[in-house]
Order: sequence, then C-alpha cells, then structure tokens
Amino acid sequence: MTNDTSNQMWGGRFAAGPDAIMEAINASIGFDQRMAAQDIAGSRAHAAMLAATGIVSDKDAEAMREGLLTVLSEIEGGTFVFSTTLEDIHMNVEARLKDIIGEPAGRLHTGRSRNDQVATDFKLWVRDQFDAFESGLLALIKALLAQAEVGADWVMPGFTHLQTAQPVTWGHHMMAYVEMFGRDLSRTRDARKRMNECPLGAAALAGTSFPIDRDMTAKVLGFDRPSANSLDAVSDRDFALEFLSTASICAMHLSRMAEELVIWSSAQFRFVVLSDRFSTGSSIMPQKKNPDAAELIRAKIGRIFGANVALMTVMKGLPLAYSKDMQEDKEQVFDAADNLMLALAAMEGMVKDMSANRPSLEAAAGSGFSTATDLADWLVRVLGMPFRDAHHVTGTLVAMAEQNECDLPDLTLEQMQSVHSDITSDIYEVLGVHNSVASRVSYGGTAPSQVLAQVARWKEMLE
Amino acid sequence: MTNDTSNQMWGGRFAAGPDAIMEAINASIGFDQRMAAQDIAGSRAHAAMLAATGIVSDKDAEAMREGLLTVLSEIEGGTFVFSTTLEDIHMNVEARLKDIIGEPAGRLHTGRSRNDQVATDFKLWVRDQFDAFESGLLALIKALLAQAEVGADWVMPGFTHLQTAQPVTWGHHMMAYVEMFGRDLSRTRDARKRMNECPLGAAALAGTSFPIDRDMTAKVLGFDRPSANSLDAVSDRDFALEFLSTASICAMHLSRMAEELVIWSSAQFRFVVLSDRFSTGSSIMPQKKNPDAAELIRAKIGRIFGANVALMTVMKGLPLAYSKDMQEDKEQVFDAADNLMLALAAMEGMVKDMSANRPSLEAAAGSGFSTATDLADWLVRVLGMPFRDAHHVTGTLVAMAEQNECDLPDLTLEQMQSVHSDITSDIYEVLGVHNSVASRVSYGGTAPSQVLAQVARWKEMLE
Amino acid sequence: MTNDTSNQMWGGRFAAGPDAIMEAINASIGFDQRMAAQDIAGSRAHAAMLAATGIVSDKDAEAMREGLLTVLSEIEGGTFVFSTTLEDIHMNVEARLKDIIGEPAGRLHTGRSRNDQVATDFKLWVRDQFDAFESGLLALIKALLAQAEVGADWVMPGFTHLQTAQPVTWGHHMMAYVEMFGRDLSRTRDARKRMNECPLGAAALAGTSFPIDRDMTAKVLGFDRPSANSLDAVSDRDFALEFLSTASICAMHLSRMAEELVIWSSAQFRFVVLSDRFSTGSSIMPQKKNPDAAELIRAKIGRIFGANVALMTVMKGLPLAYSKDMQEDKEQVFDAADNLMLALAAMEGMVKDMSANRPSLEAAAGSGFSTATDLADWLVRVLGMPFRDAHHVTGTLVAMAEQNECDLPDLTLEQMQSVHSDITSDIYEVLGVHNSVASRVSYGGTAPSQVLAQVARWKEMLE
Amino acid sequence: MTNDTSNQMWGGRFAAGPDAIMEAINASIGFDQRMAAQDIAGSRAHAAMLAATGIVSDKDAEAMREGLLTVLSEIEGGTFVFSTTLEDIHMNVEARLKDIIGEPAGRLHTGRSRNDQVATDFKLWVRDQFDAFESGLLALIKALLAQAEVGADWVMPGFTHLQTAQPVTWGHHMMAYVEMFGRDLSRTRDARKRMNECPLGAAALAGTSFPIDRDMTAKVLGFDRPSANSLDAVSDRDFALEFLSTASICAMHLSRMAEELVIWSSAQFRFVVLSDRFSTGSSIMPQKKNPDAAELIRAKIGRIFGANVALMTVMKGLPLAYSKDMQEDKEQVFDAADNLMLALAAMEGMVKDMSANRPSLEAAAGSGFSTATDLADWLVRVLGMPFRDAHHVTGTLVAMAEQNECDLPDLTLEQMQSVHSDITSDIYEVLGVHNSVASRVSYGGTAPSQVLAQVARWKEMLE
Repeated sequence: MTNDTSNQMWGGRFAAGPDAIMEAINASIGFDQRMAAQDIAGSRAHAAMLAATGIVSDKDAEAMREGLLTVLSEIEGGTFVFSTTLEDIHMNVEARLKDIIGEPAGRLHTGRSRNDQVATDFKLWVRDQFDAFESGLLALIKALLAQAEVGADWVMPGFTHLQTAQPVTWGHHMMAYVEMFGRDLSRTRDARKRMNECPLGAAALAGTSFPIDRDMTAKVLGFDRPSANSLDAVSDRDFALEFLSTASICAMHLSRMAEELVIWSSAQFRFVVLSDRFSTGSSIMPQKKNPDAAELIRAKIGRIFGANVALMTVMKGLPLAYSKDMQEDKEQVFDAADNLMLALAAMEGMVKDMSANRPSLEAAAGSGFSTATDLADWLVRVLGMPFRDAHHVTGTLVAMAEQNECDLPDLTLEQMQSVHSDITSDIYEVLGVHNSVASRVSYGGTAPSQVLAQVARWKEMLE
Repeated sequence: MTNDTSNQMWGGRFAAGPDAIMEAINASIGFDQRMAAQDIAGSRAHAAMLAATGIVSDKDAEAMREGLLTVLSEIEGGTFVFSTTLEDIHMNVEARLKDIIGEPAGRLHTGRSRNDQVATDFKLWVRDQFDAFESGLLALIKALLAQAEVGADWVMPGFTHLQTAQPVTWGHHMMAYVEMFGRDLSRTRDARKRMNECPLGAAALAGTSFPIDRDMTAKVLGFDRPSANSLDAVSDRDFALEFLSTASICAMHLSRMAEELVIWSSAQFRFVVLSDRFSTGSSIMPQKKNPDAAELIRAKIGRIFGANVALMTVMKGLPLAYSKDMQEDKEQVFDAADNLMLALAAMEGMVKDMSANRPSLEAAAGSGFSTATDLADWLVRVLGMPFRDAHHVTGTLVAMAEQNECDLPDLTLEQMQSVHSDITSDIYEVLGVHNSVASRVSYGGTAPSQVLAQVARWKEMLE
Repeated sequence: MTNDTSNQMWGGRFAAGPDAIMEAINASIGFDQRMAAQDIAGSRAHAAMLAATGIVSDKDAEAMREGLLTVLSEIEGGTFVFSTTLEDIHMNVEARLKDIIGEPAGRLHTGRSRNDQVATDFKLWVRDQFDAFESGLLALIKALLAQAEVGADWVMPGFTHLQTAQPVTWGHHMMAYVEMFGRDLSRTRDARKRMNECPLGAAALAGTSFPIDRDMTAKVLGFDRPSANSLDAVSDRDFALEFLSTASICAMHLSRMAEELVIWSSAQFRFVVLSDRFSTGSSIMPQKKNPDAAELIRAKIGRIFGANVALMTVMKGLPLAYSKDMQEDKEQVFDAADNLMLALAAMEGMVKDMSANRPSLEAAAGSGFSTATDLADWLVRVLGMPFRDAHHVTGTLVAMAEQNECDLPDLTLEQMQSVHSDITSDIYEVLGVHNSVASRVSYGGTAPSQVLAQVARWKEMLE
Repeated sequence: MTNDTSNQMWGGRFAAGPDAIMEAINASIGFDQRMAAQDIAGSRAHAAMLAATGIVSDKDAEAMREGLLTVLSEIEGGTFVFSTTLEDIHMNVEARLKDIIGEPAGRLHTGRSRNDQVATDFKLWVRDQFDAFESGLLALIKALLAQAEVGADWVMPGFTHLQTAQPVTWGHHMMAYVEMFGRDLSRTRDARKRMNECPLGAAALAGTSFPIDRDMTAKVLGFDRPSANSLDAVSDRDFALEFLSTASICAMHLSRMAEELVIWSSAQFRFVVLSDRFSTGSSIMPQKKNPDAAELIRAKIGRIFGANVALMTVMKGLPLAYSKDMQEDKEQVFDAADNLMLALAAMEGMVKDMSANRPSLEAAAGSGFSTATDLADWLVRVLGMPFRDAHHVTGTLVAMAEQNECDLPDLTLEQMQSVHSDITSDIYEVLGVHNSVASRVSYGGTAPSQVLAQVARWKEMLE
C-alpha cells in the first residue's frame, strides 16, 4: 500500500518519504474518490475559464478538457488505478491527466489550489445530496398523502403519554407526518439556496493575481455566484454542517414514525400490518415477523446525528484558513447522506405497503374513556359550566365508570344525573367516537373534512 | 417545597398525592416561570378570541384580560408567589387569576389545553430569541466591518495549518468572519420565518368542537398563520431544534475567532492587544493579562451544542402526540440562548476594543517565504512555465534560502539563475508583501480594493 | 449586580474595570457557590498543613481555620452575601475571612493558586456525587431484587423487535436490569477510585518552592495520594468526564426501563400498573393517568449525555495548563448529577410501587406462537433432527396454525403429523408456557430456579 | 446485488422476498464480515461444547470444527464469496459450512441463536481492540518518558490561558501527558475486565433447554465467566459504549497534545521541529511544511466521540431484548477503533521523531515576567509578608518594568526598594528561570529532580 518514494507532486523539499502510518492517516483517496465526477467537472470548468481569459491557450484547454473526460470514463469504467501515494482525488486525476496529455496538464492548476478545489468538489457533492434529500422527502410525503386520503375518516386512538387521549383519524395522524417532512423540505430548500456559492478561484486562501473569471466558473458549475471572501471560501464547512443538521431533524422525524410502526405492529396493538417486503424472520423463532426496517430507520438518527457531532467537534476552534482537520468532513457527510436516503426510501416503501387494521383502531379508539373531553365540552357548551367545573364533573363520572368496570356511554342517565342533575340524554350523542372526530372542525383539527382539506392543500402545493 | 394535598387542578381522581420525588421530577415551575409574559399574552389573545366568537361573554373575557394584566404586574413586580404544587406556569397563572376574578377564570381554558398552550408560550419565547440572535449578529457584523474598513490594507500573514502561507490583509481576515456571521444571519431569518405558525387551538391534540377562530389568535400574537395539523402542533419541537442547530453553527464560528484571538494575544504572536475590559488577572501571577472572554466564548460551543444533543436525544423515537419527555426542552433552549447572546455581546465588545499590532503583523507577513506562491506565479505568467514546473523551481529556491538562512528576496539574481536561467531581476517586484496583497484582485481576493468593495456591499445590505 | 470598581484581588494593574458583559461571562459565583463546603474544607486542610510545615504560625492557622468555620456557618445559614465582583467562591470566602480575622487571611493563599484550589473543590464535589450515585444504584437494585424474588415464576412474553419471542419470567426480566445497574455500580466504583488523587499543592501549574506537605492535605481530605504532576493536576477534568460517561450509560439503562414501563402501562399492553404517586392527570382529559415519571426518566439521558458532549467539546484541543474554558465544567456536572440522582430515586420509587398484572402477562406469554422454539428444540432433542431442519418444520406448523387462526397447541396430532410423520403426542408437553420457562435451566436462563439463584447471588454480594 | 429468492435460512414463511431497499438497509454482511475470525472461533467453541455435553456426536462436532477451519482459510485467503442475500457473517459462514460438510452443519445452531452469537462475536472483537488500545498507550507513554528523561531540565514557558505563566521543564510537560495517557490505560484495563463475560448460550433471549455447558465455552474463548442473565446478555452493548467513552477521553488527550504541537510548530513559537515523516507540503506554496499528522490527530476526537453519540442515541429507550436497531453498533466501533489506533501510532511516531528547540524554549521561558510568582514568594518567605500583600507589591513591580520596557531582573535595586524598602539584592537569585524551576520541588512539581523521580516511578510500573 505504500512505496518508498516521496510524493512527486510536492517537489524536492522532503528528505524522507512519509512512512506507512503517515500515509494511512494522511491519504484521503480511500474516500474522496467518491467525488471524482465533481472534481473533473470543476477542473473542466476551470480549464474553460483559463482559456476564455487567455491564461492558457485554447489548445491546451481543449486538451485538458478532453483528457479529463478520458479520466472520467476510466474511473466510471472501473479501470482507473487509484494511488495512495498520490494522496487524494485531485492528485490522482491530475497525475493521470499528465500521462494522457503530457505537458499541458501542468497548466491546469494555474490560479487555483487544492484548498478551493476540494471545497468546490465537496460543495457540488453535497448539493447533489440536497437534491436527493428533496426527492426522497417528496416521495415520502406523497405516500403519506395517499394513506391520509383513503383513511381520512378511519378512527383511531390519539395518544398522549402513550395513553388513550381522544379519538383521531388515521388521515389526521398521517398528515401530522406530512407537516413534519414538509418542514424538512422547507429547510432543505433554504439550505441548498444558501450554500450555492462557488469557492473556486479562492486559490490557497488569498485569491490570485491571475485574471480569472470567477463568475464564469460559478455559472458553468450551476452556482448562483462566486463566494465573496477567499479566506472564508476555503475555511467554510457550514454547508456540510447545515446538511447534517437538517438531516438530523429529518432523522428524528423518521425515528418517531418508526417507533410508532414498531409499537403498532406489536401483538398487543395490532394497529398496522407491515408488508413482508419490509419485515424479516428469525433464525430460531420461526413464527416471528419482525419490523426490522422500522427499527433500522429508528436507529439511523444515531449515525446521522453522530456525524453532525463529529464534524461540529472537528470544526470547533479551528483558526483560519484551511487546516488539515477539515479533511475529516467528507466521510461523515457521505455516511450520513447514504443512510438518510436509504431511510427515506425504506420509510416510503413501508408507508406505501402498510395496511391499517381498521377494526383494531376503531375498537381502541372507543376504549379508555376517550370521549371524556367531549363530555366535558358538552357540559360547557350546553350547560354553560366553566370548563374547570366541567372538568371536575367529568372526572367524577370517569371514576364512576371505572368502579363499575364499564365505559362512559354505559353509564345510565340516572348515574350521570347523580353527579350533575342538569345532564340530559343528549349527552350520549357526543360520546361516540365518530361523532367525536366529526365535531373537531377547528382549523387543523382531526375531523375528516379538515383532513381532506389539508390533503388538497398539500397536493396543490406539490403540483 | 412540597405539600401533602394533591394538585387541585386534576380533580378528584388521585387517591395519593405525588410525593416529594415525583414533585421534584415533575414540576416545571422552577424554570417555565420564565415564560410568564408569553403565557399571559397567549391567554389574553385566547380570551379575546373566545369573546369575539361568542364562546364566552364579553364581560367574562374582559375580566380575564384585566385579571391577567394584574397577574403579569405581580410577576414583574416580584410579588407573585410561585407554587410547586401547581406544577407549571400555566396552572400558577390560572390559579392566581381565579383568586383575582373568581368564576370567569374557569372559562379561560375552554377550547384549549396545556399542550397547545405550552407550545404557544415556548414558540413565542424562542421567536424572541431569534430576534435577539439577529440583533446580536448585526452588532457583531458592524464591529467587524469597522475593523475591516480601517485595516483594509494592513498586511498580516495568512495561515494554513497555522503555518505562514501567503500575505493577506487585516480587513480581508475580518471580512471572512463577516461572511460567516452573515450566513448565521441568513439561517436565523429563514428559521424564524419557518417557525412562525401558531399552535394555539390545537387543544390537547385533536382540535376542538368549539367554534374558535385560530386565525384571530395567530394574528394577535404576531404569527403568520395557524399551524395546519393539531397533532403535529402539540408534538413539534423543530423550532427549538432549529434554533439550537443555528446557534451551534454560530457558536462554532465564534469558537474559531476566539481561538485566533487567544493565539494572537500570546507573547509569541503579539498580533493583537485585547482591552483590559475583556481580560483578567491572576491570583498568583501578577503579570498575567488573560484573554478570559475569548476563552469563555470559545467554550460556549460546548454547552450550546450540548443542548442540541440533549434535545435531539429527548425527541428521538417519541410517539405522537405530546409525551412528558418534551418538558425537557425548555431548560436546554433557555441556557443555550442566554449563553449565545452573551457570547455574541462579548465578542462584539472585544472586536470593538481590540487593537491590531501592525508592526508585528507586517513583520510576520514577510517571513517564512510567504511570497513563494507569487514567485511561482511569476514564473508561470512571465516565463510561460506550466504551474507544476514553476512550483518545483520555487521549491528549490526556498530550499536554497533555507540553507543560506535568508529569505527569498535576499537571494541574489545569480543564485536564482543557477536554478533557472531565464529568471530576471523583475522577479523581485513580486516578492514584497504589499505587492503580493495588492496583486490578488480576483473577486473575493485579499487586495485592499477587493476588501473595501466587500465592506461597501455589506454596508449597503445592512442599511 | 455589577459595580464600577475593579476586582481588588488582582492588584493595581488594570486601568479599566471589567464592564457588565465581561462580568456576566466571567463570574462563576452564580454557580460555584455550590462548592462552598468543599472550598472551605480544602482551605482548612491547607491551613493546617501550612502550620504543620512551619510556613505560617500555629496561631495564624488556627485563626484561619476558625474563621473559615464562621464563613461556612454564614453560608449554610443563608446570611452570607455573595459578590459577583469577587468572581468566584474562592475570592468570596477569602474576602469574608479577611473581614473576620484580618491580616492572617492574607497568608492562607501561600503555596497554592486558584487553579489547584478549584480542581480540589470540584474533585471533592464530584467524589460526593460518585458516592450518591452508588447509593442510588444500590437502592434501585434492591427494589429490583424484591420484584424479581416475588415474581420469579410469573410468566410473561419475552420480546425481540417488540414481537413476542419466547415466554420468560418477570423475575428474569427484573434481573436483566439488575445486571445493567450492577455494571453501572462497578463502573462507578472504578472511576471513584481512579479520581481519588489530590491536586492541592500543584499551585498555579508548576508546584511551589514552599516546603508544603502534599501527603498531609491529601490524607486530611480523604484522597488516596497527591496527584503526581502539577501541570496535569490543574489541567485535568477526566474525573468529570468519567462521571458524565458513567452517568450517561446508566441514564441509557434507565431510558430502556422507562420505555418499557411506558409501553407496559398502555391500554393495549396493561402489563403493569404504576402507582398514583408516580403518575399524573391531564388538564383536559380527566380520565388520563399518565406515566409522567417514566417519561421524564426516559428523557434524562438527553441532558446527562448532552452534558457529556458539552464538556468533551470544551476540553477538545485545550493546550496546557489551565485555560478559562474549563470554567464551563461545573454547571454541566451539577445539572447532570442532580438529574441522575433524581432519576434513580424516581425509578426506585416506581419499581417499589408498581404491580405486575399477572393475568395480562400470562395471557400475552402464551399467544403469538411463543413456544415455537420449544417445538423446534423438541424435534431436535427427541427426533434427532438437525436444528435447521427442525426450524423449517416448525415454520410450516406455525403457518398452518396461522391459516387456521389457532395457536400451536390447538393443532391436532394429525395436522402435525401431516407435516412430519414422526411427531408424537409428547410434543404437547413443551407447548405450555410454564413448561417452557421451567425448561430453560441453562446458566442465566429464565427458569425460576435460575432466577432465584441469581437473586441469592446478588443479595450475598450486596451484604 | 439482490436476487429474487427469499433467504433460505428463514424457512418458507415469507411469500415475497425482500426487495432491494430492504436488502440494502437490512444486510450487515458488508461490515460484519470483519468479525469472521471471531464468529468462527465462537462456533468452534460451541461445537466442542455440544460434543462434550453429548448434544451432538463427537464425529459431527469434529466435522464442524474442521469445516469451520476450512471456511476461515477461505476467508483469510480471499477466496470466500460473501452473499448479501445471506444477510450476515453468521449465515454466510453456516451456509458455506453446509456446502463443505453437509448435514452436520445443520446441528451447529443447536442451543444458540444469532442474538447470542453476534453478541459473542462482537465482544471478542471489542476485547481485541482493548488489547490494541493498551499496546498503543504503552508505546506512546514510553516515547513520552524518553522525551521527559532527556529533557528533564530544559526550561520552557508554562502557560495558562496561552499566556506565559511560570517557567517549567520540558520533562515536566511531557510527564503531564504520561499522567493523562496513564489514566486512559487504567480505564482501558478496568473496562476490559468488566466486559469479559461470555454471552454465548443465552440463545435468543431466554436461555435454552439443551444441557449446554456455558462455563466451558466461556473458558475456551478466554472469558472470565458466562454472563448471568440471558435477557441482558443479548441486549447489552455497554462494552461497546465503554470502549467508545474510554476512547473518547483518550482522543481528547490526543487533541490537546496535537493542538500544542500545531501551535509549537508555528513560525511564531518555533518550540518544536516535527520530522518530515509526519509533515506534508503544499500543492501551491512550496515552502510550507505542515503539521498534518498533528491536525488529523486533533480532529479524530470528532469521529470517535461522534461514534459514542451515535451508539448512545441508538440504545436510548430500546426495550428488551434484542432490537434490530442494535445492528448499528458495529460500524461505529469499527471506525472509532481504527482511527484511535491510527492516532495513537501517529502520535507515538511524532513524539519519537520530534526535536525540542531548546534556545527558543529557554528564551520564551524567561520573558513575560515569568518569575513574578517567584518574586512574590520571596517576599512571603524572606520578608514574612502575607501572600496577598506580596502579590500586590509584585504587581506594582511588574507595572514598573512594563513602563520601562524591561524585564524584572533588569529593574535596579533602588527601583525595587522604591516599591518596598525591605527588598534586598538577594531577590535577584529567584528571578532566573533555572533557579525558578529548580526551586519547585514540591511533590509533582516542575523541578528536574521531581521529573526524574516521576520518570523512574513510571518505568518501574511499566516493567
């Protein structure tokens, strides 16, 4: 893996070649080869600009641009031999370019440095991930909208503290996740827009005296503008941290939904049936059908947020401009991005495939005195009681039902009137779960009409 | 701190009162009293809406609104007695309101729940912090612009790896931080806009059957709109996490600048003199003048990012809707916000007060072969050498200077020509640090003209 | 809160007094007053040593020691007025000592510095927390052992992936947590032993030329020995980080048990009834009985591990010796320790009070083909089938039972023999849950005999 | 990468095969193949035990054990074809074993499960890492001892707040790190001892009804004993978290030393010269010699502590026993261990190769009024002044020297006496840096005699 000659790119200064440990800790080619396409795109843009500004000849630039395409095809074809001695993707590409086109290859690095080059490569890579992130979110949101629309009026228990609280609708529950992933979408778009400034041309840290055209390279590479300070351009990893922060919050949302799917798949809940495609068996317990995909999605917040911690810790207290510590940025983002995209796709697949168990949901929705609040609200609305008094009366009725081992609608009118004499038989109308959910028509409430209105709003926005 | 009666607000259900441990772990009044003003503003808006929609009488609403102002003045005046038995700020305020206005107080909680109430209070509090964050950033940016403008042409060493790399200007270095804090500003504004949806009216989790007007309360409280899903509204803490993420990245920027100030204040660097106002002495070493404020700012990333980790961990895997785990949100954000604002203010003060040590900066800028790149660029530009060859020639000249224990401009023309015979005496023109920085006029480069252009751009944007 | 005179302890060097921002960011008295007893104990030991070595007179030392007791009683009595201008607990105590005893107070700081003083104070404080940690663990383990002993033979479902896997016993499940908290106990004891070295006498960083006796102060303060390197002694915060790491792992264990209690308390599981003392009600849903204590315990891992992240981040990359960044250590540890002790006490209380719902547990244990493994093992043991073949046969039988909507024991012998003809009626003996758990007598297995053996082992160890 | 048949190991239950996304998120063979040697060692021990207890025949066991050796040699020889469809290392090995030895392979999984198998494999792997960790620490400590011994009396500035505080010795500074890494060593050993319990035989979660001998497998695999609770045995990842915690604290120590080496290598400090072997050049600035290894070591705390955060987050709130979330454990530990070992080796190499720049160190030690404390101590010791008064006098003398732009020894006796008339010419004796360090003979102090005593103590301990 090592050889005993020094890196030929550094010139003649070093008497001793780096030894094996140094090479192992220093070389990045093991992971940064993943940015080969971005590196070559950046170099091709740079070459075109060098020609347009007269810094190199058109002929040399053309040779570079063609040669770089050859290198790219070698890499994509799997025939390129990466060298650890050449440290990184930039050196590997440039050395191979020299093999192919000879002397003009040595003119490519004019007016730039590895510092702005790697910042550009990495930004291009991360920008692609923001796009993949957006696509993953959109697909998941659409899967959730489909579930919400079909189940807009299926009743299920709404929980707080994992205790039955009030009946809600399946559609309403799905739409809560649409809101969450919708915020992730909004964050993703803001971040992508903010990071879309091109560092190329910042050179090592101070800019350059060559008459480069930074607007041109920025435009060719799809950036909105060149970055405005060359010291900052090579020292900045905000875009990676904002990707990781945004991904972490999304992973948190995924972990919540995954937790619900695990609990809902248990024999005790039976709220949902996951497809075989996203479940696995056991090597020793043949009857098991495990929600592995949900569990793995739940766990992904660990490594994604861990990557965020890792890079934030790396960046803490680094003086300007580039420090080698920053080489630790890429593997964290690569791993987090891979796992985020996988988790989004797996969740989309699970949501598409899963079936709500409507009888279980409805039965659970009606148990546990879930319409106690409706009863209290009735006392306020019909009898004009202050809410706090109504709350107290309701508590007494619940205690009565508990002692009688029955549910609220099973209490007789006489029993109810023994607690508050003004109660009439109209009260039974609000104790059914379907009445309960249908009544909650406040904006954003769980009523099927509200749910369908939100589905429609989202569909319109996504068109 | 405890008493032996149960919380009167829960009604009669509980046989045993919570004991001391439960009260200690459960009560939030010790910290959430900090949201008293937000809680009362929310309740006053809610009362007005209840009257406007006819849910309560105008007279009752007026009594509530007046009574709440009385409660507020008691809290602000320090005469309010907070009760741990009443658990939280909501119950403390409501109980006192009942003391003051009697029966109508019991109607205030109509159509809402503590779940949407606390979400609203906390959002209002966090929104204020986004505003404070923005103000703190603007003040710091202005202090940096002032330093950049006056020192646009002061030369100093630009470092990579804390090794002298190329000369840059003081103004350019200050402007790098302007870019960083400028991105923080952009993030802050995006996040504040995204979070500005009102949860009030989501009630416990399902919305309500009372004919509430959520648009009205949202508008009165300065929100852009009501939140669109009641389950999400009470389960969402994204706004707090996004505040902590944004604050963490800013704290990272602060840590980098603080690190530089600590290093620059050392006896070995002497690049900057911090004011006595932001330094301290030693109890045993009378000569010390320690950059304590810079060190403390450097450390703040720890607790701010720690708060981010804490809340992200809390939220991991929580099923919908409200779980009591979420009560752990506030202390983390309170502490992070306090420390962020303090760190921003302290950094602003340090930047305003600090003096660059121009002679030290200039001397350091010229040492360490800092214009080697200029030499290499000259070989490319004037002799037409490929950059890679020029780089190699430069390396040989640097090695020669090192052996002769002199700097590059001290090499004679003969010595230079012994390495490459085409070198002419014109080369000495690019070896001076002032020539070096003046030549880097690429967009965003370190040339004084570029720095002043960026200062002007920022001033215009901030107007 | 501020005044306009400079800190009198620093001598006359500073022209300008620190302003309000500096005082706010710099002063630690707001939190380090919590170490008053430790500070005074350290100073009293130091004074005794100064006299024993002849560095100060016996009379002066006696005055210091008596005066310090007076200061302590003022602090404990709540009459002490803390001054922010005096920055920290050390200066506050010393200044008050001077008020009380006059000139000899000025001799107390001989041969020490605030750097070794604060390290000593903080170590003493953290050491007390290790002791409290140990006590909390022991109490919780005892509560678990009591549950395990009484329920050694109560059957319940053992889960993997929250899917019913095999029947286990209540006692076995409780003992799993005993093992976890037992490892925490072991870690706590190792860490406490490791940290028990005394930094006092390291002075500012280099030791001192006064003939101090570090063995004496170490012994008086209960340390095993003085620390062996003065630079390290004032720079080291490993003991705090190891406390936080150890606390974090324990908090993780608590979070797992708390999660189980939340799930087990749901209407769908009904495995356990928590006491009213550790539950709360709802402001709007009168029927709710929420497992708040469990949820709050589950969340504590957030702030405890967040504190670990915070302090680790603070310590990253700090050059030796003391840097002011390290002042950020205390609040993190204070908060983590408080919350850990509270969480341990609350969990102990919940475990003591909770009642297993034996009928629910037993019914759940027998459902979901939970004895499929027993069936497979029977095929191996009695028919001599390779396990992999037995596994396949069992899977077919489970599928058959699922199609017939019955459980495994409900399949007829004919049905079984249609899958494998050698099956005999003896097979029904291993399909009952009580037989199943009784058979798992491998060391550490779930059989009641194994559980009771482990309970006995633990009781003996704790005696 | 996928195929359309279901996993043959699960039996016939699944109608649909897992699709590509599921396979990608679920399969662990991509990383757990790293535990192949451990998996095979565990299986060989298990097979021997199955024969010894009569559960399988000696002949079958011998076939398994021989076949497993064949599999191992295929893996080590690189000829083994890993299959993603077979999910993990356990299934891959077992399937290949069946190819080789046929039917007896199906008897290997008797009395165990993948749950205890993976716990055993992973523990064996982590245990090896604790051993490598210990070796790495010992080698680094030895390199530091060598530096300390040769430089026991070289003076250098001791810093607090990166400000010159007092003179210390090079040896003393090196020994501070010996103490730190020595504590890491102690933690490593405690953790390794604590984790050395064997989970094998816990089976899926409940133990087994086969008459297995857990003591035998534990002993064969080098464990101290079998783990005492089967539920805990398969749910426990404390050993991985304790490895990561211990590694994180060590990485923090490495980051501090690395930070010092970066600062010390700067042109402004020039305290140390790093070898070419652990430095690199620049692609654009030929004169640069960058301390890349030190920077990369400084950064490693990020990914190592990030791994700790990741796994802690994964484990938060997982109910017992095994959940698939726990599959996320391995990659975190693999990456952290690799990077820790690399960082330790790189630091050892740097310490061995580096040269202290004695003239720079000595010159810096004497500047900045570094012996002000010695002066103050003289006033206390010789004139009997209270320390606080001596501190004030010293501060005035420092201010005088600053105004005269000289150092303390350059003040005349008259000038000194103008501040305090009792000062005599003896005072000049304590103002030299060599006198200063030689005087600090308190235990653990910086005096060369103390340093050599500590070196001797450590050498004896390590023998």
